[in-house]
Amino acid sequence: MKLRFYNAKILTMENENIINGELCTDGGLISYIGSEKQNGDFDREIDLCGNLIIPGFKDAHTHTAMTFLRSFADDLPLNDWLYEQVFPHEAKLTEEAIYVFTQLGNMEYLTSGITSSFDMYFKLPSYAKANTDMGFRTVICGSINDFGGTVEGIEEEYNTYNNYDPLISYQLGFHAEYTTKLETLEALAKLAQKYKSPMFTHNSETKAEVDGCIERYKMTPTQLFDKLGMFEYGGGGFHCVWFDERDMEIFRDKGLYMVTNPASNLKLASGIAPICEMKRHGMTNFAIGTDGAASNNCLDMFKEMFLAAGLQKVKENDAAACPAFGVLEMATKGGAKAMGLNDCDVLAAGKRADLAVIDLAQPNMQPVHNIAKNLVYAGSKQNVKMTVIDGKILYEDGKFLTVDADEVYKRANKIAREICGD
Amino acid sequence: MKLRFYNAKILTMENENIINGELCTDGGLISYIGSEKQNGDFDREIDLCGNLIIPGFKDAHTHTAMTFLRSFADDLPLNDWLYEQVFPHEAKLTEEAIYVFTQLGNMEYLTSGITSSFDMYFKLPSYAKANTDMGFRTVICGSINDFGGTVEGIEEEYNTYNNYDPLISYQLGFHAEYTTKLETLEALAKLAQKYKSPMFTHNSETKAEVDGCIERYKMTPTQLFDKLGMFEYGGGGFHCVWFDERDMEIFRDKGLYMVTNPASNLKLASGIAPICEMKRHGMTNFAIGTDGAASNNCLDMFKEMFLAAGLQKVKENDAAACPAFGVLEMATKGGAKAMGLNDCDVLAAGKRADLAVIDLAQPNMQPVHNIAKNLVYAGSKQNVKMTVIDGKILYEDGKFLTVDADEVYKRANKIAREICGD
Repeated sequence: MKLRFYNAKILTMENENIINGELCTDGGLISYIGSEKQNGDFDREIDLCGNLIIPGFKDAHTHTAMTFLRSFADDLPLNDWLYEQVFPHEAKLTEEAIYVFTQLGNMEYLTSGITSSFDMYFKLPSYAKANTDMGFRTVICGSINDFGGTVEGIEEEYNTYNNYDPLISYQLGFHAEYTTKLETLEALAKLAQKYKSPMFTHNSETKAEVDGCIERYKMTPTQLFDKLGMFEYGGGGFHCVWFDERDMEIFRDKGLYMVTNPASNLKLASGIAPICEMKRHGMTNFAIGTDGAASNNCLDMFKEMFLAAGLQKVKENDAAACPAFGVLEMATKGGAKAMGLNDCDVLAAGKRADLAVIDLAQPNMQPVHNIAKNLVYAGSKQNVKMTVIDGKILYEDGKFLTVDADEVYKRANKIAREICGD
Repeated sequence: MKLRFYNAKILTMENENIINGELCTDGGLISYIGSEKQNGDFDREIDLCGNLIIPGFKDAHTHTAMTFLRSFADDLPLNDWLYEQVFPHEAKLTEEAIYVFTQLGNMEYLTSGITSSFDMYFKLPSYAKANTDMGFRTVICGSINDFGGTVEGIEEEYNTYNNYDPLISYQLGFHAEYTTKLETLEALAKLAQKYKSPMFTHNSETKAEVDGCIERYKMTPTQLFDKLGMFEYGGGGFHCVWFDERDMEIFRDKGLYMVTNPASNLKLASGIAPICEMKRHGMTNFAIGTDGAASNNCLDMFKEMFLAAGLQKVKENDAAACPAFGVLEMATKGGAKAMGLNDCDVLAAGKRADLAVIDLAQPNMQPVHNIAKNLVYAGSKQNVKMTVIDGKILYEDGKFLTVDADEVYKRANKIAREICGD
């Protein structure tokens, strides 16, 4: 498949400039970006009428199939929510349920211009198939803890899903310190070193989590992981709300990725991550994730970008804090780098063709003083006209081209009723 | 015009129940809501295919024509933003500019299911005409301060715009304590008493504003206004971020409306309003506004609703704080009551036909465990299928039916360039 998008504005994210011109694809790759008219045997030539192409957003922390619990058990204290609602209902998830709720989550990503997910969940055969069947790109994150999974299983997954399909890759990971015993953490550190691989986990999401770790080990989760040798080849943490100075220095020195989840952190009352303070301590690697739909409750990078910026401004008591373009970098190339998708980070010839077309002919994008600020501060799913992954159009003008939406809604509601009994 | 919507789910907001059935209109009024099939000489019969009708959202504090400054001067400290960017550029606004940027703002309200605005701005003849020409409902709020307007002018506006057009009404108001001298505040209090009218103003938006007032008058803005007799017939405040206990008691005892603007308060680093604490002190009247597009930067009630709930949860350190249905009440009937639109508050026969149709056949609204929670926690402009004001469809499936969108974008960009020189 060869596509030609013309009459386009292109924000490559290599810098802040907007290119007026064309973007062409050849198979899964971008073959041209520039202002010259391209001729060739394209399968489709699309007049963008001045609309904008951006790199697809990277959802750098999520649990996609948790869409099954969207709006089922909100407005509850965190422990009631997790132990009385989430865990018992997750236990009932079948392979079919994982498949359908992954389809549903992926569809929602597409409506928000998200072209890949960094997903921590389970029943990976059904999960992977749901992604490859619809053409969605995902990086699976290991999710072992004391209640499920083994280190040998993680190693097997690592080798399986890094050699499965070009759309699928796998990073080592585990659920969290507070759910995983020391012996397992030590074995995971060895595994990271054996494969010279990064390691990811939920880290310091709540104050209680950090306090518990200090009680158990006399140090924070970050310091424990570092001491165990988990981060010799990089990696990062999800949430990272309750970091102390030493944690920030470890993340800085090891080049680890801080993946922020601002909507989830509000909705579960976890707190506001100190991103500006982290930057003052020299940390430079940031990405953004939605977390799962049970805690957020939606999978929307526009919501996360506004929150990532706005919460820092109010936390720092400084309207100048955390400017828009930096947030856009976190949501695109920051996420790509955290996830190991180094050929999906920016738009350039030779990179994978993972992109979104933004409809600028909408009131919230007008007038056009500054496109990056419009995206971060005023953008919405309403503006996503098209989402393209690996050179293939998956979503266009509200239609899903690789999945039967009505069938997914029907199956999703049937299975949700069976599991949740509402 | 008589409309019949059938195969609908209807959330009237009279209570939490969902009615499966029909809603009909006759002229500007709702003529029927219920489960029986209605027959009659309808101008249009619309199969909603199971989609949802809700009362239109009420944007209870905004400056509509500030769309001209969207994304022009963000990421600046508050004083630089206000005195170096906003005020000098506002001074260049012509009658034509106000007309066009009001059209643009109203279009954006329609995309978010907002059916009326409580608007504080200037050049009211152009403003009012932009609203009546496109059929948008607005309540104009007086905006006098030391730099513009007189109390006599406010009285004249009050009488003019309360007898102008059924879509337009006017409430007494002024900009803020810190921009308005005592003599004027005293005269405004007398005016409120003369007309037995509520009074509205920006109130305690920033800590500096409250500190300044205490320095000048030895009391907070709320206590000053109350002492001057401004609230004998009700009214309310916009923002209300920095309230003390006495302020809350005055709002409670006088039945005043607290209009929260959470996105603006984040983006300008003003703070997080203590809504839960206000409720604990007995305050019961709350509404939600977007503030203007120069500070927000968009006019989107879905964004505000998520923030209104999420910020309370993190402020209270309690995921159970500020549940979804209460937020939906603030965004609909709370706003209507604050604005004096008592026949636009809920959906019922005899009420004005101001409503929005929500597309539930979208991934972010599935599965359907709880519609109110889906709206507040996962809703987006993408879900607004239709917006109806006074029985007239103004927005449907992305099209604006009473205004030429492309012409508005063209004129808006031209005028914005002339004013801002970018």
